[in-house]
Amino acid sequence: MKSEPAAAARAARMIELGREECLELLGGVAFGRVGFTRQALPVIRPVNHLVDGDTVVIRTHPGSALARHTTVDEVVVYEADDLDPYTRTGWSVMVTGRARLVTAEWEAARYRALLVPWTDRDVDEIVRIQADLVTGFRLTH
Amino acid sequence: MKSEPAAAARAARMIELGREECLELLGGVAFGRVGFTRQALPVIRPVNHLVDGDTVVIRTHPGSALARHTTVDEVVVYEADDLDPYTRTGWSVMVTGRARLVTAEWEAARYRALLVPWTDRDVDEIVRIQADLVTGFRLTH
Repeated sequence: MKSEPAAAARAARMIELGREECLELLGGVAFGRVGFTRQALPVIRPVNHLVDGDTVVIRTHPGSALARHTTVDEVVVYEADDLDPYTRTGWSVMVTGRARLVTAEWEAARYRALLVPWTDRDVDEIVRIQADLVTGFRLTH
Repeated sequence: MKSEPAAAARAARMIELGREECLELLGGVAFGRVGFTRQALPVIRPVNHLVDGDTVVIRTHPGSALARHTTVDEVVVYEADDLDPYTRTGWSVMVTGRARLVTAEWEAARYRALLVPWTDRDVDEIVRIQADLVTGFRLTH
């Protein structure tokens, strides 16, 4: 066990962010983490995303646990952050809402062109997460 | 909606990591994200952590949704990553296991000294997550 890296000694102040600012921050970064349950266990997976209006769009592979969520309109969470462990400043945004597969082929194709997979795995399914609940905070000195 | 930032065009290869390597990577970074459910909804919260043997140690505030999980030995997930959206390389580690409050005062005091809160909020409860299941991957070219 190691202690934490030397950091700015001062504790940061946590400021809550409004919905618009949260979605803007989320749209400005390339990836985040989707959280859902699989076989009654919580799961967090890093993925790249796009923000499109009031939705967060991600890709997944056909038959994935996440894809199965979309068939029952299950609620998932999406989180992204940009936090600096040395200054202990930055932000985090969390979007909570129903996940749905994009089934219209023209629409899925459009998202596939905009959202390039990071790996060579088959992630051809497009999932849209409705930003029903948007929360976030900024840490500042 | 914006497209993603210009990135290395090549897709990365995803290599699964073993338990020891995952815990070592996790121990080498200061923070990650805990995932659990609150009122039947999935939640992801960034927090700073320590790795102590086969456990991940974090702080939370008394009465938090996370603290309530520990009273029923509920399973939570802890994820950390270091991913570069430009080169599309890096790693992600996920630990799944029961969360328990550290109730022995000497032990809680020791963790409090090692794990300094980032904010001025009261996060005096210490939670230990048992690394029952440890998975991770590295993205590489």
